[in-house]
Amino acid sequence: MMTEQINVQLAATQREKPDQTNLGFGRIFTDHMFMMDYTEGKGWHDPRIVPYQPITLAPSAMIFHYGQTVFEGMKAYLTEDKRVFLFRPEKNMERLNRSNNRLCIPQIDGEFAIEALKKLIEVDQEWIPTAEGTSLYIRPFIIATEPFLGVAPAKNYTFMIIMSPVGLYYKEGIAPVKILVENDFARTVKGGTGEAKTAGNYASSLKAQEIASEKEYSQVLWLDGVEKKYIEEVGSMNVFFKIDGEVVTPALNGSILHGVTRDSVIQLLKHWNIPVSERRLSMEEVAEAHRDGKLEEAFGTGTAAVISPIGEFFWEEEKMVLNNGKTGELSKKLYDTITGIQYGTIEDPFNWVIEVPIASSK
Amino acid sequence: MMTEQINVQLAATQREKPDQTNLGFGRIFTDHMFMMDYTEGKGWHDPRIVPYQPITLAPSAMIFHYGQTVFEGMKAYLTEDKRVFLFRPEKNMERLNRSNNRLCIPQIDGEFAIEALKKLIEVDQEWIPTAEGTSLYIRPFIIATEPFLGVAPAKNYTFMIIMSPVGLYYKEGIAPVKILVENDFARTVKGGTGEAKTAGNYASSLKAQEIASEKEYSQVLWLDGVEKKYIEEVGSMNVFFKIDGEVVTPALNGSILHGVTRDSVIQLLKHWNIPVSERRLSMEEVAEAHRDGKLEEAFGTGTAAVISPIGEFFWEEEKMVLNNGKTGELSKKLYDTITGIQYGTIEDPFNWVIEVPIASSK
Repeated sequence: MMTEQINVQLAATQREKPDQTNLGFGRIFTDHMFMMDYTEGKGWHDPRIVPYQPITLAPSAMIFHYGQTVFEGMKAYLTEDKRVFLFRPEKNMERLNRSNNRLCIPQIDGEFAIEALKKLIEVDQEWIPTAEGTSLYIRPFIIATEPFLGVAPAKNYTFMIIMSPVGLYYKEGIAPVKILVENDFARTVKGGTGEAKTAGNYASSLKAQEIASEKEYSQVLWLDGVEKKYIEEVGSMNVFFKIDGEVVTPALNGSILHGVTRDSVIQLLKHWNIPVSERRLSMEEVAEAHRDGKLEEAFGTGTAAVISPIGEFFWEEEKMVLNNGKTGELSKKLYDTITGIQYGTIEDPFNWVIEVPIASSK
Repeated sequence: MMTEQINVQLAATQREKPDQTNLGFGRIFTDHMFMMDYTEGKGWHDPRIVPYQPITLAPSAMIFHYGQTVFEGMKAYLTEDKRVFLFRPEKNMERLNRSNNRLCIPQIDGEFAIEALKKLIEVDQEWIPTAEGTSLYIRPFIIATEPFLGVAPAKNYTFMIIMSPVGLYYKEGIAPVKILVENDFARTVKGGTGEAKTAGNYASSLKAQEIASEKEYSQVLWLDGVEKKYIEEVGSMNVFFKIDGEVVTPALNGSILHGVTRDSVIQLLKHWNIPVSERRLSMEEVAEAHRDGKLEEAFGTGTAAVISPIGEFFWEEEKMVLNNGKTGELSKKLYDTITGIQYGTIEDPFNWVIEVPIASSK
């Protein structure tokens, strides 16, 4: 493991904490952030916690031109007895390095990054919100900083972790969303960057999302880029369908994100002896199951929303209402179990949560 | 047209001009840059020329996370009689707005942007290199600056123009390059962002490029993302093939960049009565033409390299050497004609060049 000391420079003053009843998502940031730099030939260096502040880059910094960047999304949770939990952070660091590999960004030391994150959380511990359903959203990301307009992997990068106290991702809480199945636009394709958590995939998705919003659908369901038949993801989440008692989710095929919540849902279902299968799944199969009355539930999974039940699909003029537009039993049980484990209110049979050691608060 | 006055703040000192025999590409920048901001509800505002300097953004600025950004590449040329030419700048602004549309970025006033560019060039006129084959590379780009971690189009943007005196894109000048036909990775796909000049397309291309470089190929030829059969682009250029007397280039199908040089080549060929066709073209057809001795030439086209002759393709264990690895006659003629028009040494029958009015230099 990287052994360099993390330099800590505390903010001179602490900013006022926000109103916890109206946190929103990703607009408010804590007093500090973590940074470290990469220089070709030297590796990652100068890990430091500094006051949250603007960053300064050359206008020619490669991030602005060629999008060489990756990110992660994680959360820290405050338990009733004031302990701080992280949920499977090693999975996020594994995925960050998988994304790095695809984007030609140097690997980071995941263990070291988790230690740095723990230290950052300790410094900003008072920013973890306490109201029900709130948490501290954590955004690690890496950007190419070399000032150069050539199309090539950069020689300099900065890795950062910023943190934002957040409410529920969907203001309405766990409530079914309406999904438009996308036939025109593609998010990614086999051989593309779909498996990586990188900016371009999200930029690419905005147009379809905008059109869906105009039609009053809250998210888009992405079909594969080759045949436009097979289900990939929904919005920026993985997706599950309960069909005739079996839970099905698209197999990881190279263009689907390796969701941490996705993996947790699969493990939980197996633990509960509910049949679950990762395989290729066509939209036609889902529509047919709906027509036959066998599409029992559908839901998206992701760190931000945890479980997002789906109340309706719209696909090629066919409107499919699920479960009378209500949250399904399984969706609810998964949401309650995962958030229960995350907040320490129910047993964690998988050792998913990791406690962040917190020295007594000032 | 936008009528707001462009505020000009001159640099206190002028930096030393670089050695013109070793300019490289995109590492040295002029003394000034152009900026203007967009605010939702207010539109584009505060156009200004300021000293070239680092830019400061919140770590949560959307550009760092979701890649909402577009760019252009253009050049300014100094003629023998000290006039300054731009080459079809209106085409770049048209394309910038096409890219904006795909990326959900507000449209800019292209005419105004060209006026701003002319003013910027006038301010930095002494930076236009004079040595043969050199030019002033111009990089307009737009980045999403809103500090927000939600996946949605931003409410704030900055448009910038930076300029870099450059030598030839390929150090070796107009000399044939070796191209690896890519079978595993995809740059983009139908319904994706391939037609837009946006960061994610370039980020996505790095991995294949890295593997090609290890095999000593200088660029990758991209096949379509769906069937992996049809030719799209080569590296970050459009591509042309001369087969049995006819010049063929892939038709604009939604995932291919609308290259300005591509369009200029097509117009020139028509002007010369050389048969040219924009159509779907498979790699198999190219390989077959090569086997039959009918693949006479191939070349890439782009602003940076202008015409980049191709000396060799490698595709599925088949090595195809073109024209004994030498620059073809047509490639050379196109290069000489386009650069001749750009530098004002030969007639411009298409009115492609626009003169930048330059008040006498200090």
